[in-house]
Amino acid sequence: MTKGDETRRQIIKKAAPIFNQHGFAGSSLAELMQATGLQKGGIYRHFKSKEELAVEAFDYALTTVKNLRFAEIDPEMPAIDQLKKFIENFVERRSSIPGGCPLWNTAIDCDDGNLALRERALAALQSWMMRLTNIIEQGIENQEIAPEVEPEALASLLISSLEGALVMKRLTDRIEPLQQVAQYLNEILDSHANR
Amino acid sequence: MTKGDETRRQIIKKAAPIFNQHGFAGSSLAELMQATGLQKGGIYRHFKSKEELAVEAFDYALTTVKNLRFAEIDPEMPAIDQLKKFIENFVERRSSIPGGCPLWNTAIDCDDGNLALRERALAALQSWMMRLTNIIEQGIENQEIAPEVEPEALASLLISSLEGALVMKRLTDRIEPLQQVAQYLNEILDSHANR
Repeated sequence: MTKGDETRRQIIKKAAPIFNQHGFAGSSLAELMQATGLQKGGIYRHFKSKEELAVEAFDYALTTVKNLRFAEIDPEMPAIDQLKKFIENFVERRSSIPGGCPLWNTAIDCDDGNLALRERALAALQSWMMRLTNIIEQGIENQEIAPEVEPEALASLLISSLEGALVMKRLTDRIEPLQQVAQYLNEILDSHANR
Repeated sequence: MTKGDETRRQIIKKAAPIFNQHGFAGSSLAELMQATGLQKGGIYRHFKSKEELAVEAFDYALTTVKNLRFAEIDPEMPAIDQLKKFIENFVERRSSIPGGCPLWNTAIDCDDGNLALRERALAALQSWMMRLTNIIEQGIENQEIAPEVEPEALASLLISSLEGALVMKRLTDRIEPLQQVAQYLNEILDSHANR
């Protein structure tokens, strides 16, 4: 890694909490300069635009969160256990990057605005949906999950309710909504288990 | 209503879509001037600050959405039917104010920022939770809903998953996630019905 690459990496790392907390429009150059300790020219030597930096910061924050959410999920585990681990990770593991879920923040921040960020958020959502859908399909194939379960519908329920509960947790400053939703989802998974 | 009151009301109405789509920091004075057809002085004659206008615009957008979500929900109806109507309203009725749910947008926009807006969003969430919790408690009392149901947990699941699915709908531009989640919730309600 050259010195330039390392500086670029440091700028992304320091910009990620700013964009994740304040959104694209809400992240000012002044804040980005303060967080990185660089002048405007020092930042824009490495990035064509604020948008390019925001996209890279999103990718960085998303990877961090994705690694937490899918931690210790082994494809060799029973499908229901993989899904329960995903739920547990969502409740227990907090990202080191403050501001909540970068995917959900960016989805809401960019649904009426920035196209490049919107595309990234959409691709990320599709990738998470695919990953959960695959686990559920595999579970049905292995006769661990009842065959009448619709994989995409169950994956939508898991992601929407956990992301929604995380917003409730952040707004109310109480963990209970997230725990209650997780318990409901675990019961739903148990009711879908082939016995 | 005086002419001044009417102008104030018109400013709020025209500012609401801007704030709902672009957030507090993302809504520029230039945009607000264009939407209202007024100069800076014309706007600030009626509001102390951008924050005061944003709070009023939030209240306006929220009332609009609340009226849609709780439309045709009659306390005389069986509790399960009231909850199913809430779900149906969420899927079927779209607000005339573009940009998605003002409560969710503001929750995410303000969890790291504006305190006045954050307080409003928190109060709104608590009020919706209370309303659903009351319906569920009443249903348990009337023996329409199984007594082991935890009212707050079920209310959290309803709000988090529907709001989450609405974000998925807006990002993917597909209604299916919202329909799938609604179907799941209806099945959960049926499984809680006392028979």
